[in-house]
Amino acid sequence: MELREKISANLSSVKEKSPLIHHITNYVTVNDCANIVLAIGGSPVMADDLEEVAEMVGFASALVLNIGTLNSRTIESMLVAGRRAKELGVPVILDPVGVGATKLRTDTAEKLIKELKPEVIRGNMSEIKVLAGQNVAIKGVDSLADEQGSSIIARTLATELHCVIAITGKTDVVSDGRQVCLLDNGHRILADVTGTGCMTSSLVATFCGVTNDYFTASVAGIISMGLAGEMAQSSMHHGDGIGTFRARLFDSIYNLSPEILAQEGKIRYE
Amino acid sequence: MELREKISANLSSVKEKSPLIHHITNYVTVNDCANIVLAIGGSPVMADDLEEVAEMVGFASALVLNIGTLNSRTIESMLVAGRRAKELGVPVILDPVGVGATKLRTDTAEKLIKELKPEVIRGNMSEIKVLAGQNVAIKGVDSLADEQGSSIIARTLATELHCVIAITGKTDVVSDGRQVCLLDNGHRILADVTGTGCMTSSLVATFCGVTNDYFTASVAGIISMGLAGEMAQSSMHHGDGIGTFRARLFDSIYNLSPEILAQEGKIRYE
Amino acid sequence: MELREKISANLSSVKEKSPLIHHITNYVTVNDCANIVLAIGGSPVMADDLEEVAEMVGFASALVLNIGTLNSRTIESMLVAGRRAKELGVPVILDPVGVGATKLRTDTAEKLIKELKPEVIRGNMSEIKVLAGQNVAIKGVDSLADEQGSSIIARTLATELHCVIAITGKTDVVSDGRQVCLLDNGHRILADVTGTGCMTSSLVATFCGVTNDYFTASVAGIISMGLAGEMAQSSMHHGDGIGTFRARLFDSIYNLSPEILAQEGKIRYE
Repeated sequence: MELREKISANLSSVKEKSPLIHHITNYVTVNDCANIVLAIGGSPVMADDLEEVAEMVGFASALVLNIGTLNSRTIESMLVAGRRAKELGVPVILDPVGVGATKLRTDTAEKLIKELKPEVIRGNMSEIKVLAGQNVAIKGVDSLADEQGSSIIARTLATELHCVIAITGKTDVVSDGRQVCLLDNGHRILADVTGTGCMTSSLVATFCGVTNDYFTASVAGIISMGLAGEMAQSSMHHGDGIGTFRARLFDSIYNLSPEILAQEGKIRYE
Repeated sequence: MELREKISANLSSVKEKSPLIHHITNYVTVNDCANIVLAIGGSPVMADDLEEVAEMVGFASALVLNIGTLNSRTIESMLVAGRRAKELGVPVILDPVGVGATKLRTDTAEKLIKELKPEVIRGNMSEIKVLAGQNVAIKGVDSLADEQGSSIIARTLATELHCVIAITGKTDVVSDGRQVCLLDNGHRILADVTGTGCMTSSLVATFCGVTNDYFTASVAGIISMGLAGEMAQSSMHHGDGIGTFRARLFDSIYNLSPEILAQEGKIRYE
Repeated sequence: MELREKISANLSSVKEKSPLIHHITNYVTVNDCANIVLAIGGSPVMADDLEEVAEMVGFASALVLNIGTLNSRTIESMLVAGRRAKELGVPVILDPVGVGATKLRTDTAEKLIKELKPEVIRGNMSEIKVLAGQNVAIKGVDSLADEQGSSIIARTLATELHCVIAITGKTDVVSDGRQVCLLDNGHRILADVTGTGCMTSSLVATFCGVTNDYFTASVAGIISMGLAGEMAQSSMHHGDGIGTFRARLFDSIYNLSPEILAQEGKIRYE
């Protein structure tokens, strides 16, 4: 099956199976992550207490670990939930928000990667460059890094960490170390809304919840967000801005069909 | 006064008195809960630190305890706030989000019920079945249970716990152990948006803040959300989805009048 | 340069420099604060763990401390981040949400003010009256106080605390102890949406990130929110409410230009 047929079939599976996606995530964009998972057809659950995360992940089809507002309590919960996920074969999707911005974020991301070996790591170019050990200017949680060499970085890091690396930006790049895909959907207004990165990770996780081909799942999640961004942007009128755009973004994910995903995805192989 | 006249009068009271509704709730839907309370005419306050909850509840007309993202710190705060609420006669509305999904949630819900004897418990069918001691399949925080027998369960549990039991679903059921009401407002798209259950609990609490007839207050809160869901859904156009729907849901609560509530509420007695 | 030219120039600077605004804030309105900073052209970052706040504030152009859902853990982080901000000359903007409602809030606001000497304090009339040591009825976090004497209170408190005092309400007042400005933009529907106060503080902080004239920055932030409220309200149609209004509020901030700010700001000197 060709890649675009696979991602289309994956979306059908999401809508049919409604996979439970357990999140330990930040309090800034958590509502958006819950709504985006519901919008595409999954079932989100947010639970972060040490006493329940291992049990909750037992029901889940994927686990999202997002360090956007990490703290000592939730870092511990991420480790406990992640270890249980690995025992059970539940895929772990890591969103290393702001890694490189502080030592705590860098240490935590490295610890999570080393101990849990996530199936997918999705970040922006700055974040992935930090994980790849490259020098990069960091300012908060938004990417400043240029995207040159992104294919090589994705492929190299994926090989090193034995996982899928997904870099979102103007052109998105996904690699499992062997294959490399460039994705050209999306619109720059997506960067003007908080949480579009976090939501993309949640979408990737939702697709990971219905297949163990995590490379394809990552492509599907990223294209879904990119397409929805295009659809939402194209519906904007004079005077509209990120308030209207955000509402339309959720509308577009809600109305995304397997057919649209197959037809409109802009996929290039390297 | 007939029930539909009572709920209409309650809405007038909410708009006149703007009751303060103290929430100790989850970080996923907390913004929605605050906005829905404001939209209907109440005044929300969210405070969860052990050092201030007892003092804050002293100003409140109702207290919402929602275990959606419970943790050891906030469970303690719920108990302290709840005990103070009982001393002061402030009604406690419990939303046992995801009870049955983990031991921590089940134990906490049971502890809160036993120690605080909430005036109202609002949940979905799965959650209420768990509290009623029935076997039920659980996956995360969304209901899988069928609604058969809901009237009997509501009445029995209400009698046992000496409180109002409100079950929301396709048909909503409210009972105080003596009376049982079936409510038919709403639209299934409400289940596609996170937080509609939490918001319903906040609306119920807002009505509980202006009357000590908690059965009527629960009916009023649930019908308000159901009607707003209908109004929001009927305003949707081709291409709209949950983003637009959510905005329209808040619009509809904001524009809900005592007259509409009296006229459009679909109430059946059993 | 006249004040309205200055605020206009400040907005150009925000859009050019995209200052990083570090927030330690409440979980109710945090998403709104992030989105409003992005909408006006800044870059928000939310980080509250004791181990990273001092490092994060080192990259920031302003620090927002908002006590809306304070707890013992985040109070400590506020102090640590604030001390580091003072060492580095990063302006501190305090939003004393609900001060006076509980002893914890009052003690914390006083401690933050005493230890950190914030550059700007933005609150509603009730909150500022509490800080000024006046008797005032408090109910939760919404203002009940009348606005009489607001100019004198702002000027006196600003002089006493050596900072800018910004009081938002029907008429907004900003004073640095020497100058006093009255601002007449805005619409009463802003009070029907949670977080408009918090978002105003975040806008003030964003402007403080591009100038050390914090009086002008405060005026700019408050007028931006007031104007956006007017624009959003004027776009409302029959059946619209706070859901649509909120989306339009973000749209309006996103589309706010330096020209509109200069032309439409309603500024009176006292």
